[in-house]
Amino acid sequence: MNSSDDLQDGPESASPASASPRPTVRLSARPDTGGNATGLDLEECLVGIVGRSNVLTDADVKLAYEVDWTRRFEGRSAFVVRPGSTDEVSAVLAACSGRGVAVVPQGGNTGLVGGGVPSDASAGCVVLSTRRLNAVSPIDRLSGQVTVGAGTTLASLQAAATAEGLTFPVDLAARESATLGGMIATNAGGLHVIAYGPMRSRVVGLEAVLSDGTVISHLAGLLKDNTGYDLAQLLVGSEGTLAVVTAARLTLVPSHDERVVVLLGVASTFEAVRLIEVLRREVEGIKAAEVFFEDGLDLVCTHSNLARPLKGYFPAYLLVEAAGRTDRSEALFKALAELDVDEKATAVGLDATSMAALWEYRERHTEAVSALGIPHKLDVTLPIALLGDFEVAVRKLVADAAPDARLVLFGHAGDGNLHVNIVGPAPTDETLDERVLELVASMGGSISAEHGIGRAKARWLHLSRSDSEIRSMRAIKAALDPTGTLNPAVLFPGAENRSLVTT
Amino acid sequence: MNSSDDLQDGPESASPASASPRPTVRLSARPDTGGNATGLDLEECLVGIVGRSNVLTDADVKLAYEVDWTRRFEGRSAFVVRPGSTDEVSAVLAACSGRGVAVVPQGGNTGLVGGGVPSDASAGCVVLSTRRLNAVSPIDRLSGQVTVGAGTTLASLQAAATAEGLTFPVDLAARESATLGGMIATNAGGLHVIAYGPMRSRVVGLEAVLSDGTVISHLAGLLKDNTGYDLAQLLVGSEGTLAVVTAARLTLVPSHDERVVVLLGVASTFEAVRLIEVLRREVEGIKAAEVFFEDGLDLVCTHSNLARPLKGYFPAYLLVEAAGRTDRSEALFKALAELDVDEKATAVGLDATSMAALWEYRERHTEAVSALGIPHKLDVTLPIALLGDFEVAVRKLVADAAPDARLVLFGHAGDGNLHVNIVGPAPTDETLDERVLELVASMGGSISAEHGIGRAKARWLHLSRSDSEIRSMRAIKAALDPTGTLNPAVLFPGAENRSLVTT
Repeated sequence: MNSSDDLQDGPESASPASASPRPTVRLSARPDTGGNATGLDLEECLVGIVGRSNVLTDADVKLAYEVDWTRRFEGRSAFVVRPGSTDEVSAVLAACSGRGVAVVPQGGNTGLVGGGVPSDASAGCVVLSTRRLNAVSPIDRLSGQVTVGAGTTLASLQAAATAEGLTFPVDLAARESATLGGMIATNAGGLHVIAYGPMRSRVVGLEAVLSDGTVISHLAGLLKDNTGYDLAQLLVGSEGTLAVVTAARLTLVPSHDERVVVLLGVASTFEAVRLIEVLRREVEGIKAAEVFFEDGLDLVCTHSNLARPLKGYFPAYLLVEAAGRTDRSEALFKALAELDVDEKATAVGLDATSMAALWEYRERHTEAVSALGIPHKLDVTLPIALLGDFEVAVRKLVADAAPDARLVLFGHAGDGNLHVNIVGPAPTDETLDERVLELVASMGGSISAEHGIGRAKARWLHLSRSDSEIRSMRAIKAALDPTGTLNPAVLFPGAENRSLVTT
Repeated sequence: MNSSDDLQDGPESASPASASPRPTVRLSARPDTGGNATGLDLEECLVGIVGRSNVLTDADVKLAYEVDWTRRFEGRSAFVVRPGSTDEVSAVLAACSGRGVAVVPQGGNTGLVGGGVPSDASAGCVVLSTRRLNAVSPIDRLSGQVTVGAGTTLASLQAAATAEGLTFPVDLAARESATLGGMIATNAGGLHVIAYGPMRSRVVGLEAVLSDGTVISHLAGLLKDNTGYDLAQLLVGSEGTLAVVTAARLTLVPSHDERVVVLLGVASTFEAVRLIEVLRREVEGIKAAEVFFEDGLDLVCTHSNLARPLKGYFPAYLLVEAAGRTDRSEALFKALAELDVDEKATAVGLDATSMAALWEYRERHTEAVSALGIPHKLDVTLPIALLGDFEVAVRKLVADAAPDARLVLFGHAGDGNLHVNIVGPAPTDETLDERVLELVASMGGSISAEHGIGRAKARWLHLSRSDSEIRSMRAIKAALDPTGTLNPAVLFPGAENRSLVTT
């Protein structure tokens, strides 16, 4: 879901038109082993629930739901169903799980790890699109909260919040398409995690439906509510494998009147990390701390025909944004002066235009990289103390293993999150991907920072999670989705190849 | 665990000496149905794991672990075991679960809902004290994180953080005794949830042991780590029913140099809520927003022999603290002036002494209430928009149902969290408690804001959680603790009376 490393090249620009459609698979009526025996075949049943116009059966219409926007993942579905209420989601899930039909929940289909589209292993599944669940409640100014349907786009929520002088602080490039339900399912991150945390931090209540149709609703948005297990926090980041999120209670933050952006040329990632630590301590309101490197900057300036931001050339660049109710520039400049940061290595943005210009150097990395070829994109987190060591190590690894490959790094340094882009190896050759992820794991990092595991990384889950953790996760999956109906092809190792549940 | 409403009267002052000890129950050796067959009886086995000195068997020594500090809950244990490492916790749990012996995890024994001591239903259980797991790692300044053993006291962590110019922002009265493991198990809250969230918001990694001895460890503290289910967030607030927390990775925040406290006399809770909303929007760094009332203030001034804080008498009082790297008083005074707050209704604290003096009016409520008799203490949250309505309704309810009772309200208004204290009804008569909790539920509130469910509120869990939610919670409990070993007497309705698991 989260494509914050793709700020200019969102899914809305992707076109799956060239993927070849295949004939629709129709499921025949089967005896129902659950409590939902109706005698109807699945299609009749689904039409009865959501209406004919919301059960998509034509191959060309379904296609937009069957291919992910990266074009790396696709699979066939029996039907695409577009329920318009939580009750309809419940009835659809009961109908499918009772018939042993897998369900793939989908939001805006902007995910980057194949978690929202069918796989070959789940051919004959139902894609459950949440996009019609797009109601937005009036904003409660007292609590700074809002209740949204899972299919609400990020952009819709941002607009509603802005109208009330508030901000929804999780932001990413696919905002026009990405749905809040999908962002919850993948615990989306983005540019401001350093200040506001990921989606998890915004969720104060959820409504969701289990595979048997059970509705779990806890939307009061109480900040203190210690009444047993926090099911919402369990569902955040579960990638549609435990329940279908239908609505959420989210917290907003006050809007900031004052912003300042600085771009600093620095000697290394080590120095960038050191600067971030001091700035976060000395300056209130650091909202972003992004890093990129000379080779990436050169690529961006050439590709987008931008002037160089600084007079000199530096091994690494740190972009910092501070914001608040009051001017942050004085505190920021004072801290930089005490850090002996050379003025020649500093560009400052104090108005909207100059701030946007500085952000462009970071944001245009994705399109510049894509212009080189189809990149292998790895989204990883390191313990921040090891970020500098990782940069050195991953450059050596790639240089040794694939001397002709282009490696472009950039990311959210304040979180320890780097996007590793490798152009060169064939798209299907994941040898180098695996070695990079093994390096990440050996340094105590995470193989997925903000995109999730999906199908793309399921076979490497063991690099970030122990056998004990994976066993516990499987036990929870079996407890809440005993029929294995929900998104059977994602998250768990081996799941991407398992055949359809046929209870 | 969380006793933030008891700021002056922490558990360290409680003495269980008058509770009558009973003879130790010895478990006889039984066939082991699990994978841990040793032929040893449980005591020999436990001594082999943790050493003779860490298996407490004498009734008078065990007693401090068998009676909670509120003196409302007690029960007998076969042994109190004090493991000194995660491996020892694992071995103890495997030995107990393999023999069908229940385990009650205990931290500092400062809980308020009986979740950390044995019940009659679990007589013969083992109390597992985490207090020896008290190692504190060096603080990582780059990430602002620290790893602590579950038995580390809050005060120890606060001291370690302060030495590095950082702050651990969850604070409560029992800080000298309360352990971080217990605070995680109960998702402790306190005075600064409005700014920093509860314990849940501080936890970026956990190590815990399941009842079969399986160790789950995820302590890297990565801020972005989307690799499947967040088991740590599931365990936070699970009250020792899913696993024993042995260590945690916690985030600290920068210390604040500048503080300001104001006490405002206001016309009602409605007005207090309105002021909080505006102040949070207009003034950065609001760290606390507490409310109390004229009857409580009068009680406090009389009991503690304090001068009145303001010249006038007001129906309600709002105490607000703002803090940051830079002076907040100007912004606060400007906002108050725009709100037309009367200067005569305002007391300001700008230095440590005057700020502490203002806080005393709030903090001394607990001891003043206790001086009236044994209070029924109900810790509830309302949607903040309904906090004023709730205050009116609960006063009417108590006045009608128990005209002779004294009702004293105070709490964390910024979170919608009120502590409802009723003095009058016999301690064992919970008729009025139930009606208050029903009122809370009818208004969409939570029957436990920050103390947890424990044994005290298990029979009312249905007021805050639906049947669907409780079924899901039971499924998760069965998945992670299939032998029902961990804290069988807490959280779930009926569990407080269930007999010991005897697999």
